Amino acid sequence: MTTRYCLTIEYVGENYYGWQRQPNLPTIQQEVEGAIGKFSGQTVEVQSAGRTDAGVHAKAQKAHVDLQDSKRPMTPNEIAKAINAHLRPQPISVIDAQIVSDDFHARFSAKNKLYVYRILNRQSCPAIEHGRLWHIKKALNITAMQDAAKTLLGQHDFSSFRDAQCQAKNPVRTLDTLTLLSNPYDQSGGKEITIEAQAQSFLHHMVRNIVGTLVQVGQDKRTAKDVQAILEAKDRTRAGPTAPAHGLYLERIDYD
Amino acid sequence: MTTRYCLTIEYVGENYYGWQRQPNLPTIQQEVEGAIGKFSGQTVEVQSAGRTDAGVHAKAQKAHVDLQDSKRPMTPNEIAKAINAHLRPQPISVIDAQIVSDDFHARFSAKNKLYVYRILNRQSCPAIEHGRLWHIKKALNITAMQDAAKTLLGQHDFSSFRDAQCQAKNPVRTLDTLTLLSNPYDQSGGKEITIEAQAQSFLHHMVRNIVGTLVQVGQDKRTAKDVQAILEAKDRTRAGPTAPAHGLYLERIDYD
Repeated sequence: MTTRYCLTIEYVGENYYGWQRQPNLPTIQQEVEGAIGKFSGQTVEVQSAGRTDAGVHAKAQKAHVDLQDSKRPMTPNEIAKAINAHLRPQPISVIDAQIVSDDFHARFSAKNKLYVYRILNRQSCPAIEHGRLWHIKKALNITAMQDAAKTLLGQHDFSSFRDAQCQAKNPVRTLDTLTLLSNPYDQSGGKEITIEAQAQSFLHHMVRNIVGTLVQVGQDKRTAKDVQAILEAKDRTRAGPTAPAHGLYLERIDYD
Repeated sequence: MTTRYCLTIEYVGENYYGWQRQPNLPTIQQEVEGAIGKFSGQTVEVQSAGRTDAGVHAKAQKAHVDLQDSKRPMTPNEIAKAINAHLRPQPISVIDAQIVSDDFHARFSAKNKLYVYRILNRQSCPAIEHGRLWHIKKALNITAMQDAAKTLLGQHDFSSFRDAQCQAKNPVRTLDTLTLLSNPYDQSGGKEITIEAQAQSFLHHMVRNIVGTLVQVGQDKRTAKDVQAILEAKDRTRAGPTAPAHGLYLERIDYD
């Protein structure tokens, strides 16, 4: 008999080559599977809701794993504690565990994903959150970025915003949310700009390519009209650069 | 001719022995003075609004420094950039600089200081903010902590909450604010508890000793009445332990 558990995992992407297991490179999947192996003696495969890229953080990645029961299934609390004990001192933490039915699948049962991209917009470098947000020195034009973001909302062919390596067959996605907020970050005029993007699924690098393009709008290098034209061109070479991984957070995944 | 600058400095306290210069130990003051020396060629003393202890962070420490003018005084922006260029890659950042009059003193002109103490209250370890808040696993009784905090508001002899090493002549201080808030930290029930303490000045370890005592109340080891009795006893041995440095932030200093 096996029991299926759904794990919620927080991690710092820095120093890892993303979620997915790769030979001879440190990845989040390998660390979590290794920790489970250590206390259970079982060789397991942990299935996540999606691969995060190298350097991308997660506040709440979801993943499921099947464990063979010994006398009784471990409680969710026991499994979370056991994994965390073996993950130390890595910056990876199982913040929740639930027993789920055997037809639950972290990836295929997911209804929605929410990514948050964080920008620190001020002259001086970040100290306390170094490596946790994208530092942009010159003041960005927030209103222009918000206007441009509106042109990307809804269902579109996002070919212009997907990586050349993207393996999805269909480049059409539906952006349910793309909001851009600016809030004070410190008492000296520094601002934090957060970009929230929600969809059922995303193309490879889609959020970071959108952010990279919106930042060009904020720098007055492009207009909202340009972004509309980029979208219609369905050509990756037309859009802006890929924003750095260390500003991106997999924030939430929703299930029924 | 010299020009006096007031600097606002953000830093991570981890790995430093506090603000104040000490022989053969890394301190924030030494790093900032060293960076100023490198671009100006001048040996300067930087006067802060207060010494933070080893491991304590600052969102906005204030400090002033006098620099000899060469042909013209450096602009505030020039001095901030020059210091930051020489501070890299330390987690210390001058986030603002202002030219002030020669009778401005970062410490003696200060009207109020605001400290914020951050607690992560959940079973699992912090990943993204490891070392930036105090991790307490068991759920704390927030209402009890809030009630106890009220007994400390206002003007009191805080001898029970000051370190044995404290050099202040007078143990009387006035706590203008001592608020305790609990907010969701993640989507799995984890909470962040923030304790804000504002006063014109504090005794040595006063905020951390108050937090350590309030946490005992949250653990149902003490009551609000006990805290009242501790305060009245004027005896450090009666209060709780000193909360760890890595949860404490010097958040704001106000001037006229």
